[in-house]
Formats: sequence, structure tokens, C-alpha cells
Amino acid sequence: MNTGTTTEITRLHEKQRTDRAELDALLDDVHVGHFAIVRDGTPAVFPTAVVRDGDQVLTHGSTGSPWLRALAAGAPTSLAVTAMDGIVVARSAFESSIHYRSAVLFGSCRLLADVDKLRAMDLITEALIPGRVAELRPHTDKEIAATQVLALPIETWSLKVSDGWPEDPPEDVAGDAWAGVVPIVTGYAQPRPAPDLRAGITVPASVTALR
Amino acid sequence: MNTGTTTEITRLHEKQRTDRAELDALLDDVHVGHFAIVRDGTPAVFPTAVVRDGDQVLTHGSTGSPWLRALAAGAPTSLAVTAMDGIVVARSAFESSIHYRSAVLFGSCRLLADVDKLRAMDLITEALIPGRVAELRPHTDKEIAATQVLALPIETWSLKVSDGWPEDPPEDVAGDAWAGVVPIVTGYAQPRPAPDLRAGITVPASVTALR
Repeated sequence: MNTGTTTEITRLHEKQRTDRAELDALLDDVHVGHFAIVRDGTPAVFPTAVVRDGDQVLTHGSTGSPWLRALAAGAPTSLAVTAMDGIVVARSAFESSIHYRSAVLFGSCRLLADVDKLRAMDLITEALIPGRVAELRPHTDKEIAATQVLALPIETWSLKVSDGWPEDPPEDVAGDAWAGVVPIVTGYAQPRPAPDLRAGITVPASVTALR
Repeated sequence: MNTGTTTEITRLHEKQRTDRAELDALLDDVHVGHFAIVRDGTPAVFPTAVVRDGDQVLTHGSTGSPWLRALAAGAPTSLAVTAMDGIVVARSAFESSIHYRSAVLFGSCRLLADVDKLRAMDLITEALIPGRVAELRPHTDKEIAATQVLALPIETWSLKVSDGWPEDPPEDVAGDAWAGVVPIVTGYAQPRPAPDLRAGITVPASVTALR
């Protein structure tokens, strides 16, 4: 594993990608990340929202969160960001598989403060609901104090992408089984207003634009 | 952390669920899991397909996979299975969040052999493409030998579910910002036949049923 480069994938070399733009595209698409840390000698994994900011990945949460505090203290970590893009239906169970994009980053997080922290908080909101920050009141000091924001540098990473057709051997291709790919699609359904929403407040542009 | 029970969630107790049926529903819904292991003293996380089989979670892959071999050797692990179900649009950035279901299991895997292994291989295929096994030729001995199948017991786990409305303070509810939830929906698009599909082979019932 080398800092400043991609990590070597020991198997399935044909699925390895080293294009940083392809990594960025995945990180900009998928905002669920899984951080692993070592706790009392054993591994623990935590899902959380992640947002790319240039050459780092941001995450945030309550200052009361023990695992975020461990990350903030510099614990070595591994972050996975995964997209499941389709089902590969081959002519055998063995060749059937999944279309995925899978990034794994390694390193340690840095705790953000002051203007970096405020900027990151807005970036996270904007990544999940583009245009929302301009529609909202500013953060209060209490809210800022209750939030910790961490940045993991994009330095040591690997990217694997499975996006090909089934690779059935000739004897299976000659058979009668169907083969292909069923894409998985994700989207947003109709917004549901909160029960305590005051009358006359319409769905804002940011929410309408999500769809 | 107690074996045979759920693990204690140190924060956000109101999101903790202890109902095994709710855990099973998540595991039956989501087939992407993230396993964490400790490797050379540092954490590493691996995405993979997971399928529940009663009181265990199955995963499988090539016998050449180093991290699966580490799991097969009994390495302590943590498995996360996460669903992102919606965006919680609150009246402040602070209260805005995500609807999610998040299971984390702890333990060690067991390597399956013989009839257990064969049964598990079919269960995995059936979970991803129900009805597909009956449409396919049997596994070859070579395919079986090239596959390792692991089972993680469902013994030590936690489940967190966020499915509520925004919890804005009264002063924000009295304001003009919209609040609600935008559900995230996932589905299958039109199947795409493989370029080498022989003429006259129609989309099978299993693939049609996915939609």
C-alpha cells in the first residue's frame, strides 16, 4: 500500500481502475460510506453520509459519537463507498454476478475547525440537497459546537468496477439459457410534507429539483 | 458487547431497535454488505453480496480472495448492512438527515462445506434472482471447488432505524421553511440482453419477475 497512489488489488486485476476521475464520479454519486476502525483490537464498521470535497472526503456527526471521536483522534481507518448498479444474469450461477463500483480508501481523518468546518457543513448539505443552504437560516453557534466534521484525504485508494457482460464459456453460450444485465435504478419518490408543516408553505426548489 | 443479544448503542437510543424480525427484514431487503477485518494491525473494509439464511448471513467468492480467506480462517469481523431510505429535509441544516436502516453484526465466519455449501450457493443465487436456480444447469465440480462460502452467525448485532419526521424546534416550525421527507426508491430497469445471446432465447421468468 503506497501513500499518494492507488492500492494494489491482488485479484481481479481486470476490474481495477486507476483513473482518479472515475473515483471522483463514484464519490459524487454515492453518499453512503462505511468506515472501519479497530476498537479494542477488533474491527468495527460504521455507515455514514460522505461527501467529496476536492482531494478529501468529508463526513460529520455529533460530537458525542464515540466512533467519530476515534476517527478525529487519528485512528487508522478504511472507508468503502459502493454502488450496486445491476444484476449480471449469466448462463450459470457461477458466472452470475453484480455490476458494482467499489472504492476503498485508507488513511486517517483530520478534524476540521473554524471556516473549514463551516464550509464543509454547507458542502455536505449541498451534496445531499443541492440548493438547500440558500433556503435555510444560518447555523446557530450551538449547532456548530455540537457537530464534528472530519476529512479523509484521498491519497491511498483502490477502485474496482464491474460493468461488463456475462463471461460465459462457449458451451454455455451455445445452450438455451438467457444472459444479460438488469440495471438497478435509484431515484426519489414524491416528497411527503411533515405533519407539522404550516399551511401555505410549498415544496422548495431544492426538493423539487431532486426529482 | 454480549453474545446472543444485541449490542448496546451508546447514542441515539431512540433509534435502536431490538426486534429480530426488523433485522431480518433489512437483511432480506439489502444484499450489499461491508465486512471489516483487521489486517496488519489496520482496519480494512470489503463490500460483498450478503444473503440471510435463518440465523446466519451468507457470503461467497473466489477461493483466491485473500480477505475471504482471512474470514474463513476465523478472523474477528464486523458486518454492516445499510439501507438509505430517504432524505429528511428539515427546517435547518442541523436537523436535516437521512432515513436509514443500519445493521451491524459482530463475530467470526464459518467456512461451509459439502451439502451446506451447495445449499448456500443456491440460496445466494435465489436471493438475488428468485427462481433462477431452476432455470440453470447444475454447478460443475470445478465451479464448486473454486468457490468459498462463509456464514456469519446472527448472534451479536445492533440495529438502528431512522424513519421519523424532521424534529425541528418550535421556533423553526413557526418559520417559513419547508420540511418533510423525500423517499428514495430503488428498482430494476429493462433487462439488456448480452451481445452474444443466441437468437430466439427470450427473457426468462426469473428476470421478468425482478421488475
